[in-house]
Amino acid sequence: MSTDQPTTDVTDESQLVCIDCDVHPYHVADEIVEYLPDQYQDQMGFMIPHGNWTNPHDGWRGDATPEDGGIPGSDPELLYEHVISDAGTDYPILNAAGLLLNAATPKADYAHALAQAYNDWLVDKWLDYDDRFIGALAVAPQRPEEAAEEIHRLGDHPQVRQAIIGSATEFPLGREFYWPIYEAAVEHDLPVAVHPGSSGNGICPPRSGAGYDSTFFQKHTAAASHYISQLVSLVGNGVFEEFPDLDFVFLEGGFAWAADIMWRMDHYWEHLQPEVPYLERPPSEYVRENCYFGSQPIPEPDDWEHLLQFFEMMHAEETLLYCSDYPHWDTDDLEHGLPPMDEPLRSRILYKNAQELYDLPDDPAEIG
Amino acid sequence: MSTDQPTTDVTDESQLVCIDCDVHPYHVADEIVEYLPDQYQDQMGFMIPHGNWTNPHDGWRGDATPEDGGIPGSDPELLYEHVISDAGTDYPILNAAGLLLNAATPKADYAHALAQAYNDWLVDKWLDYDDRFIGALAVAPQRPEEAAEEIHRLGDHPQVRQAIIGSATEFPLGREFYWPIYEAAVEHDLPVAVHPGSSGNGICPPRSGAGYDSTFFQKHTAAASHYISQLVSLVGNGVFEEFPDLDFVFLEGGFAWAADIMWRMDHYWEHLQPEVPYLERPPSEYVRENCYFGSQPIPEPDDWEHLLQFFEMMHAEETLLYCSDYPHWDTDDLEHGLPPMDEPLRSRILYKNAQELYDLPDDPAEIG
Repeated sequence: MSTDQPTTDVTDESQLVCIDCDVHPYHVADEIVEYLPDQYQDQMGFMIPHGNWTNPHDGWRGDATPEDGGIPGSDPELLYEHVISDAGTDYPILNAAGLLLNAATPKADYAHALAQAYNDWLVDKWLDYDDRFIGALAVAPQRPEEAAEEIHRLGDHPQVRQAIIGSATEFPLGREFYWPIYEAAVEHDLPVAVHPGSSGNGICPPRSGAGYDSTFFQKHTAAASHYISQLVSLVGNGVFEEFPDLDFVFLEGGFAWAADIMWRMDHYWEHLQPEVPYLERPPSEYVRENCYFGSQPIPEPDDWEHLLQFFEMMHAEETLLYCSDYPHWDTDDLEHGLPPMDEPLRSRILYKNAQELYDLPDDPAEIG
Repeated sequence: MSTDQPTTDVTDESQLVCIDCDVHPYHVADEIVEYLPDQYQDQMGFMIPHGNWTNPHDGWRGDATPEDGGIPGSDPELLYEHVISDAGTDYPILNAAGLLLNAATPKADYAHALAQAYNDWLVDKWLDYDDRFIGALAVAPQRPEEAAEEIHRLGDHPQVRQAIIGSATEFPLGREFYWPIYEAAVEHDLPVAVHPGSSGNGICPPRSGAGYDSTFFQKHTAAASHYISQLVSLVGNGVFEEFPDLDFVFLEGGFAWAADIMWRMDHYWEHLQPEVPYLERPPSEYVRENCYFGSQPIPEPDDWEHLLQFFEMMHAEETLLYCSDYPHWDTDDLEHGLPPMDEPLRSRILYKNAQELYDLPDDPAEIG
């Protein structure tokens, strides 16, 4: 969708109000395990490595726990009520929650099987529930060829509009190792998203070049750290030259760093040509055309004007996507999750960027 | 120097013009090896691990090579001519160059011996050459107690005004493991600086949570990545509560990310108190009082106004230090290394922040 005109023509007369680009559907008990092949149902169950940089609170939005006591985000009806009915979101993009850590699991075949099980469950429990539920396919980056097959298997489901990977992987995401995933995603017009969950766990490197964090406070504050390197890897290894139609979505990793990195990449691109001869354009152009950033958790300066300055520097009218991160503790909402701003920019961030990116119709009935 | 009044009273009548807070003196051939204990002269020589994320050019400022063919930055006379006579710098802060990688060496005793040898050489060759040459002691973070002893050994030399460590270390710099270094530095009123050189090498973690970079372009662009985590570790592990007088200097790791991280730390500090009960103040206060950022390599947006917005957000009048990075290829200078700005702010960045931080007199004759 980067170089061609978007199929969906987003006009000022659009009937949409908001597309929420980061909502998490959770599973309860063994309901994903049931989708696993027999060998793994007994042997592994749902088991992925986990560091214990846990939130000192419980990590959930207070009212998101279903009445039957399941975990927040596990009941389609309650999620629909909170995100669509109450918050006024047109389409929540359902991004893997408990599955993001899967990118850190050392057993690659199991990781792939678990991603497949997750996707079957996603279709059955969530996408079948309502046309407004838009799903992201989980793929295991440890097995790029099989991940591509998984995208071919379900990528044309009308409500599947994204593939998603934990934001930390064994190698930087620009490496050719991962390119089969991108090739398949482009074939099905699916953006690839990354979201925190795997960093510092299992086969992934420590969460930063400084090493392992000591607290959730550190982990949560410095998420930008590995996002910067993933973006620079994707651009710097030539992914967007090889796949000019690939769109990449950086969720929950901040965005205030993006302008600085665009300027630096352009400057060094100019001066380090011998090293990156395959980059034919100033790197910031790939970022503006191929990359998107989630809004949540929104930075909260004393002066909202500073945030609007960031929006201008990063060309937020092209690059920023509204996200709530429902049902997590630091959920942003329409009232508090964005600074006051002019309508054209606000609607770009709230739904127009996402409507074009995910090719979503004004009327959800046209999806199915 | 953080909580007490600075000894040096910097007034608008100061006679200074510029303090360049990042200049690198290089050694040639075996001139540091000669300072090593015998056992290491034969066994190791000058040997520290090195990845090969080398600059595709030669990495030097074109005119910095001495006439006798030594490497740039290795001739005190030529460095004096370029940095003091030509560029108009009052005091260059001489930060270890070839020694920064030392933080990545697995042999801790050797690393400490090499730091000692470096410091002896620094005093003999550089500090003795001219009173304006201000030196940073290299310390081996692998041996914090011995590093503290080294600070006690030379920390009161009148031209020694800083201790320096490679910006990547085996563990995040906030960990108590490193606190003996900070305790000694405070005792001698020395700021502790970090500078790129070790990241991704030897015993240090991969340079980011994304993994190992593929090119110098990636490494150089995304330096901010591990700096963010080091700052968050230092603040988040309570270093500035334990050592309220410790000043920390982040060289060559960018600064455009600092405001965003201050806001995020303040926000999460408020909401994650149970995890960081020892942090008694909003974290941004520690950053503004205890932390400094080097200006080079300056971001180069099309619109200088964006840079001034960053300066305002990060309180550059308290936190930013002018640096050239002489004799490296991307040296900034007074003409191109800073955006046009009002005089009060310009003089804070050019020398007043540094004059207070390093307690430097107007007249270099008063130093010795």
